[in-house]
Amino acid sequence: MTAPIEPIRLLPGRGIDILDQTALPFAERRLLLSDISAVCEAIRELRVRGAPLLGLAGAAGMAMAAETTPATDEDLSRAAHQINATRPTATDLGRATGDALALARVAGPDAPSRREALWHNAIRMLSLRQAEDQAIGRFGAGLLPPAASVLTHCNTGALATAGIGTALGVIATAHALGRIDRCFATETRPLLQGARLTAWELTRLGIPGTLLPDTAAASLIASGIVHAVITGADRIAANGDTANKVGTYGLAAVAARHAVPFYIAAPTSTFDPACPSGAEIPIEFRSPAEVGGYAGVRWSPDGVDAYNPAFDVTPASCITAIITEHGVLRPPYHAAIADLFRQP
Amino acid sequence: MTAPIEPIRLLPGRGIDILDQTALPFAERRLLLSDISAVCEAIRELRVRGAPLLGLAGAAGMAMAAETTPATDEDLSRAAHQINATRPTATDLGRATGDALALARVAGPDAPSRREALWHNAIRMLSLRQAEDQAIGRFGAGLLPPAASVLTHCNTGALATAGIGTALGVIATAHALGRIDRCFATETRPLLQGARLTAWELTRLGIPGTLLPDTAAASLIASGIVHAVITGADRIAANGDTANKVGTYGLAAVAARHAVPFYIAAPTSTFDPACPSGAEIPIEFRSPAEVGGYAGVRWSPDGVDAYNPAFDVTPASCITAIITEHGVLRPPYHAAIADLFRQP
Repeated sequence: MTAPIEPIRLLPGRGIDILDQTALPFAERRLLLSDISAVCEAIRELRVRGAPLLGLAGAAGMAMAAETTPATDEDLSRAAHQINATRPTATDLGRATGDALALARVAGPDAPSRREALWHNAIRMLSLRQAEDQAIGRFGAGLLPPAASVLTHCNTGALATAGIGTALGVIATAHALGRIDRCFATETRPLLQGARLTAWELTRLGIPGTLLPDTAAASLIASGIVHAVITGADRIAANGDTANKVGTYGLAAVAARHAVPFYIAAPTSTFDPACPSGAEIPIEFRSPAEVGGYAGVRWSPDGVDAYNPAFDVTPASCITAIITEHGVLRPPYHAAIADLFRQP
Repeated sequence: MTAPIEPIRLLPGRGIDILDQTALPFAERRLLLSDISAVCEAIRELRVRGAPLLGLAGAAGMAMAAETTPATDEDLSRAAHQINATRPTATDLGRATGDALALARVAGPDAPSRREALWHNAIRMLSLRQAEDQAIGRFGAGLLPPAASVLTHCNTGALATAGIGTALGVIATAHALGRIDRCFATETRPLLQGARLTAWELTRLGIPGTLLPDTAAASLIASGIVHAVITGADRIAANGDTANKVGTYGLAAVAARHAVPFYIAAPTSTFDPACPSGAEIPIEFRSPAEVGGYAGVRWSPDGVDAYNPAFDVTPASCITAIITEHGVLRPPYHAAIADLFRQP
């Protein structure tokens, strides 16, 4: 039995202990971050990554700021700004630091109360995330046939959420139930989260894994070898259109063509009921330098332009079901998502 | 006006002069190959690549063998075996050396006649290839709208054929006619022919080029930015099903979904009328080592299996038209292809 994957450990009074994701898959290096500058450096350098995990690191960073300062409103606001500035597009960071600021005000002005409230908040957030992932895993595993071969994209495991993960959590849960024959993982160019992180998690979890170039996914799906495609999500609109790591839409379109089920696994916090459809989801374009090379090795000539969106949008019509911690949503998604937010 | 791209120059009496494709895109290094061992080394090391160009190198290698030996049947058979063994799956090599052997026998037993016949054969093959590419280019350019943005995959340019290329030849011809606004090129994992070779050819030809990760192609097509997708082919079955570089099928399926024309550009020699459909085309699987890394840099953990087909099959139903040197074939392809082979 291997030890669980713990991308973050919360150590009130000492700081946070993280698994340095930049050293993966070749070394499991842990770092103790004992002040907010160290937390910010780790976020900036992608030692800690994955939207939910970033939120947790932000919440823990706020608790650490309350420990290393008198924890006045000014101290905590400054810390929040410092944390938010590390990854300006990561909405989980801003939400986590904003929630922490509000909680500190509710806890009263004295520093010890604020420290306790902010650590309590981070610990509660970690528990909540883990419970959500477990529920998503159980609901998702129920959708898979026995001896399933599944295809996933990017990294949606423990490294991204601090729980068991979303899409990869479904696969891990199904594997623990003896229902997974093999997990196929795309490389996920340009940042190779599949080749680096998902491949490592599969090895660590003892799940039979097969890596493939992104170009091979369409013929793999057409071949009938995979019984389902499962990915995570970055934002789900009110009609079920889903933004996720670039490449997801191509997988979903080919899966739909071959009647292979395509599932999204994501907690309720990923839904944006104020966003009517995928057309309104802004897509981040990243540096052209990520294309035509990797890790300092260039393979394309200088002076060629690059098209490098970080995400794409999968229309609801290509999605068989959306797996949340509250259950499995089916089309029509507009009604299912409205119901989800009507729950007490 | 830049010099044309010449991946091979035939120099009877001296050998062949090649552009070393392993040095691209960073250096334009030419090598004079003056004996058959040097030719075999260049093929094995992928200094010369692309099915049609390999055939030409094979034909020239046979002429060189006739120069450096007494050119007996035994000498030439030995040379053919040596050449064929360099890339056992490259059918163009076997066809070229087989044709050369037959021609040598027709030329009679004396060495000077054989040398002349074999060089004449290689020169004729180069001219034929160039004429075919020109015709494909003209027929294909006529299919594109003015100010077209097109998407291509892998490398199908001068570097692959020694002419102007097939799919990239269509784009170059249309560009020369002022009809191309931009050519988008996929990286083409795992061997990155798009990022390395197509990007270099576009730069050399002065065609505005944009490179993209293979994962970004689906959302690019969905966005409506590209007016057509054009690729080459490795083998076309009697019903129009087409094997080409892995990743082609995903592009074709998404193009079909969005009613973006998907064109195949290939000479008649690519058709295999004896092969009834794509199901009968054998697909080469290549080394898992090509996945999870590139050029000595590894990014995936050891011990993970890989799925690495070199080709995939695009069903005829996803192909808008097939551009050949004899004209543009349209569905139903079974009849159009039968007609092509009924021509005198």
